[in-house]
Amino acid sequence: MIVAMLEHASEDQIQRVTDHLMKMGFAVHRTTGARQSVLAAVGKRIDFDTRDLEVLPGVERVHRISAPYKLAGRQFHEHDTVVKLPNGTEIGGKEVVVMAGPCSVESREQLFAAAEMVGKSGAKVLRGGAFKPRSSPYTFQGLGLEALKLLREAGDRYGMAVISEVMEISQIEIMLPYIDIFQAGARNMQNFNLLRELGKVRKPVLLKRGIAATIEELLLSAEYIMSGGNYQVILCERGIRTFETYTRNTLDISAIPVVHKLSHLPITSDPSHGTGLRDKVAPMACASVAAGADALLIEVHPSPDEALSDGAQSLYPQQFSELMEQLRMIAPAVGRTIG
Amino acid sequence: MIVAMLEHASEDQIQRVTDHLMKMGFAVHRTTGARQSVLAAVGKRIDFDTRDLEVLPGVERVHRISAPYKLAGRQFHEHDTVVKLPNGTEIGGKEVVVMAGPCSVESREQLFAAAEMVGKSGAKVLRGGAFKPRSSPYTFQGLGLEALKLLREAGDRYGMAVISEVMEISQIEIMLPYIDIFQAGARNMQNFNLLRELGKVRKPVLLKRGIAATIEELLLSAEYIMSGGNYQVILCERGIRTFETYTRNTLDISAIPVVHKLSHLPITSDPSHGTGLRDKVAPMACASVAAGADALLIEVHPSPDEALSDGAQSLYPQQFSELMEQLRMIAPAVGRTIG
Amino acid sequence: MIVAMLEHASEDQIQRVTDHLMKMGFAVHRTTGARQSVLAAVGKRIDFDTRDLEVLPGVERVHRISAPYKLAGRQFHEHDTVVKLPNGTEIGGKEVVVMAGPCSVESREQLFAAAEMVGKSGAKVLRGGAFKPRSSPYTFQGLGLEALKLLREAGDRYGMAVISEVMEISQIEIMLPYIDIFQAGARNMQNFNLLRELGKVRKPVLLKRGIAATIEELLLSAEYIMSGGNYQVILCERGIRTFETYTRNTLDISAIPVVHKLSHLPITSDPSHGTGLRDKVAPMACASVAAGADALLIEVHPSPDEALSDGAQSLYPQQFSELMEQLRMIAPAVGRTIG
Amino acid sequence: MIVAMLEHASEDQIQRVTDHLMKMGFAVHRTTGARQSVLAAVGKRIDFDTRDLEVLPGVERVHRISAPYKLAGRQFHEHDTVVKLPNGTEIGGKEVVVMAGPCSVESREQLFAAAEMVGKSGAKVLRGGAFKPRSSPYTFQGLGLEALKLLREAGDRYGMAVISEVMEISQIEIMLPYIDIFQAGARNMQNFNLLRELGKVRKPVLLKRGIAATIEELLLSAEYIMSGGNYQVILCERGIRTFETYTRNTLDISAIPVVHKLSHLPITSDPSHGTGLRDKVAPMACASVAAGADALLIEVHPSPDEALSDGAQSLYPQQFSELMEQLRMIAPAVGRTIG
Repeated sequence: MIVAMLEHASEDQIQRVTDHLMKMGFAVHRTTGARQSVLAAVGKRIDFDTRDLEVLPGVERVHRISAPYKLAGRQFHEHDTVVKLPNGTEIGGKEVVVMAGPCSVESREQLFAAAEMVGKSGAKVLRGGAFKPRSSPYTFQGLGLEALKLLREAGDRYGMAVISEVMEISQIEIMLPYIDIFQAGARNMQNFNLLRELGKVRKPVLLKRGIAATIEELLLSAEYIMSGGNYQVILCERGIRTFETYTRNTLDISAIPVVHKLSHLPITSDPSHGTGLRDKVAPMACASVAAGADALLIEVHPSPDEALSDGAQSLYPQQFSELMEQLRMIAPAVGRTIG
Repeated sequence: MIVAMLEHASEDQIQRVTDHLMKMGFAVHRTTGARQSVLAAVGKRIDFDTRDLEVLPGVERVHRISAPYKLAGRQFHEHDTVVKLPNGTEIGGKEVVVMAGPCSVESREQLFAAAEMVGKSGAKVLRGGAFKPRSSPYTFQGLGLEALKLLREAGDRYGMAVISEVMEISQIEIMLPYIDIFQAGARNMQNFNLLRELGKVRKPVLLKRGIAATIEELLLSAEYIMSGGNYQVILCERGIRTFETYTRNTLDISAIPVVHKLSHLPITSDPSHGTGLRDKVAPMACASVAAGADALLIEVHPSPDEALSDGAQSLYPQQFSELMEQLRMIAPAVGRTIG
Repeated sequence: MIVAMLEHASEDQIQRVTDHLMKMGFAVHRTTGARQSVLAAVGKRIDFDTRDLEVLPGVERVHRISAPYKLAGRQFHEHDTVVKLPNGTEIGGKEVVVMAGPCSVESREQLFAAAEMVGKSGAKVLRGGAFKPRSSPYTFQGLGLEALKLLREAGDRYGMAVISEVMEISQIEIMLPYIDIFQAGARNMQNFNLLRELGKVRKPVLLKRGIAATIEELLLSAEYIMSGGNYQVILCERGIRTFETYTRNTLDISAIPVVHKLSHLPITSDPSHGTGLRDKVAPMACASVAAGADALLIEVHPSPDEALSDGAQSLYPQQFSELMEQLRMIAPAVGRTIG
Repeated sequence: MIVAMLEHASEDQIQRVTDHLMKMGFAVHRTTGARQSVLAAVGKRIDFDTRDLEVLPGVERVHRISAPYKLAGRQFHEHDTVVKLPNGTEIGGKEVVVMAGPCSVESREQLFAAAEMVGKSGAKVLRGGAFKPRSSPYTFQGLGLEALKLLREAGDRYGMAVISEVMEISQIEIMLPYIDIFQAGARNMQNFNLLRELGKVRKPVLLKRGIAATIEELLLSAEYIMSGGNYQVILCERGIRTFETYTRNTLDISAIPVVHKLSHLPITSDPSHGTGLRDKVAPMACASVAAGADALLIEVHPSPDEALSDGAQSLYPQQFSELMEQLRMIAPAVGRTIG
């Protein structure tokens, strides 16, 4: 941590800040410049709040030097993490993995139709929502356990791993026998109680970036899970909230190369939620792979017009298979393959 | 709902949209203009997703006419809601209510010192965190049940009602005997499972706006609680995330008059979290009252430099009592009083 | 325009709004629903401010139905606009056009080295800044007329068209003999005096999106130029300001397919300014082409470490030629070519 | 400037960065910590781009220590700047100054009616637009020189100073004889050519914050004017663009105390443009004064329903005089007066 003192800071003020830093466990090096004194605090501690120093008298600004995360950072773990799924699929390796399926599991017919179709087109992971608390209290809320069983059965039949969203600690036990990847949604990215529990399970977690979260905060939430001993974390960009209203959110594609630089964890892109509009899903999926995404999460519905949730952003089966063809052409340009 | 058709939309397309609207339960009125046809759908239903129509062929744009909430809106409930607390305090009435106390309950000494001081200066509600999952996995996590008991005792001794944050469904039962207001934090504003349970209790809920939530979304979350039968909802502005980084968040003071226009529910301002910096708390508290806030939520600590959390944004006792004096001068300018 | 009246609006209020709309030249159709009255105003006028109605008594909300632009919109001009340059290059056709060169023209040697190199790698347009007023008053400000002459000479020698930024009305005359495309920068997107003058010239204008501008506002600025008779407008996405600070701006790649839907004008992507970081330029250039961009604008410098401006975001020559190879593999996946 | 090196940075890389810093004129102090080396560069230079170092091999992060502005900062000029106007009014002193008048000067009758009224209610400065290039090419564009003459005459008659917006360098000469304060609009906050010219005049400049500009960027633009020798700069907060769409912009009231901490320049608030809605102007004006604003800029029109521009955000005369009464009650709470 670097503490820049105000130009007219007194020696007493500088001493007080130095004492505070040493009490926190840092070694302090002082540089006296032409205009101001600067204190460099070095140490191994990463769990501090820079604002505690910012409010001390005589302090101009405080800069954090090392990232506030360790386990999720590339500095301490240079090689890419590869998450292996029971069906043999690897996320974070040479292959770009496509996870697809309906927003919500609505019925056996709907799910199996979707699963067969996306599997044939090349998806390696089947997605589907079991619990769907919606933003309006008056809409469809999901099939629950029944959905989980259908997902497992459909995944097994068509050779796909299964991912579904967990929304509460109590659902972890229920989901454990049926799914291969726990999805933690954007709204739960900073639900630290849930993250702590996900740190205790030994199945991969796909962690979505919150719509108001910086990339650093996303990595800090990954750290939360990893600090519990679960190192199989897959990150996911799904759009941030900006002033632009044409799209539901702004899919921050630049987060993909930024995550690759800062972290060893795989990064997924979710163009369905990132745009909220069906006709924008394919271009943004192509863009994500071209930017280096390790995986995609895409909503596909056998008949989107009948979907009970998010129909407007679900692809028709034909659109999905055409998209897969496009992606197969793009992947080699960035040294990747698509199954 | 208004559906504007594209200029070259065919009669078949217009008919398909009309059928879709009628299937949804709307009566449809068509207006054929010089440039395009416009369909006005009228009915009582408010639980629909306009994007389901936006993706139909021939549609240019869809506009929602009525707000997506009813119980929280002023249209159906013209008079201001006044929430009455056991100690006689009313939130939403003529008096501006100040809720104050430490970020976290750290010890009996700390809490009672804070409570005595804020009570004497005019606070009517005592705040204090019992459960503190922090954004870093390596920091202080709160005293839990012990904190709740201390809050109750301190509140009773100094004649204040008690507010504390609930973070999980399982905490509701634990907190119920000790607190007078449940606080739902910004990160939980769209935790719909939690909101549903809070709709079943019969104690007031203070609902904080999420840092990426629009005012409409805040009202929709209030609706979620109210639809369960709990009408005692107090809203709270606590800062939104913008590109400005000097302050932790940007306290959206204009949300105060906007909420007063759209809703009958009381609106609180939290300048401590809204700015994150101690020396900005007083000006923003003054500004909030001048803009019409019904209540304030302010962090005060007997010795902020020793605070285990959020010390940088906590007021010193002396600052708090000076602030109360300022607020007493401002309130009459907007037709209010402060106790 | 649709005006939704409040549920308890009086007949007098409805009449007053109706009169106001008719005075503005609209025909008004009234729909009386179960809950409220809705007025649909139809007509050809697009130059109105919906807020003038929003503040009338009894009005709940006003919705604009038709886009506030005509010439730039696809509704009235279905086919893609193709801008033809003197060297035969077409922007908006099947070929994705790459415009490249240094941020600022610094010397004859620097510019010719850059031009030769980007031309050989496949760039069809040479870029270079002549006037560089910087955000700090203490930095390099550009070579002016001398730069324009060098650009023309280098462009001609290597068979490239020439683009440079115009910042003031007085520069238009100076630039006219030397450049093939006027670039209007993000900060000038709503400099309406400048746009009006650019509407009078008969050379193409590349209009950059402002960092706080919506896509609709970008199209309205294009309309401003086109309303003066200059229809050769090329749009450019170059990043918007969001809360994320790791990248200088957030390149909104979804703007590319959105512009293609709303407008017939070509859309360029500028990954150099959109990210501000050299190692993010290639992934975002690839992503832009995969999302359907008609052109790219990329900063390349013979020795970026010596650059007088924006060196940190300029590609090394070798990086640029490798990027061109990648782009040649991606373009066919979206039905395009790269020269 | 502080340069934090990557943990595995080589000695060669550290040396190269050190050389680069010394070439830039800095003295370099190296701190070798447990995890990484940190270079502190001290010197008087403020005109550098930290990204030039960020892209060097082995560098983790670069932090700017001293603010990038000097003349506008409080460090080098501790006492508040007070701008004195010809009519004796002082901006930045004990009195909160209200500047009011119509958005555009539309006619002699309209302006004089407005001027008489706002003057009687206590405004000390008359505002009115002479040049009005609007965002749509199809709307009213202002009266120009005629408007300036009317402003001067009305200001003199009612004892008010006069402020009007300058949009181009060529307008400076035209405006000079008629106005007392040049207003530089939000869209021109980074029009550095215009700022440079305003630095040469010897009349005060009111500089509005751009809707996507940070407070630091606002101060840097003030620096631009001041570096030309014109130290009479008045800053103005007028709303930033956020994801909230209910208000036109989000008036960032916290910018007021932040500016007071960082700079000695007076800070104005413009609640008319900051909200865009008439019924939000009074609460936000009250909030601004309560937060410490030195001045207010408010649109008032004799009959807002007839206004040719921005009628929806203009106050009725009666509303303005009531607001002035409220402000007179609030000012003493923050140690100020209102005339």
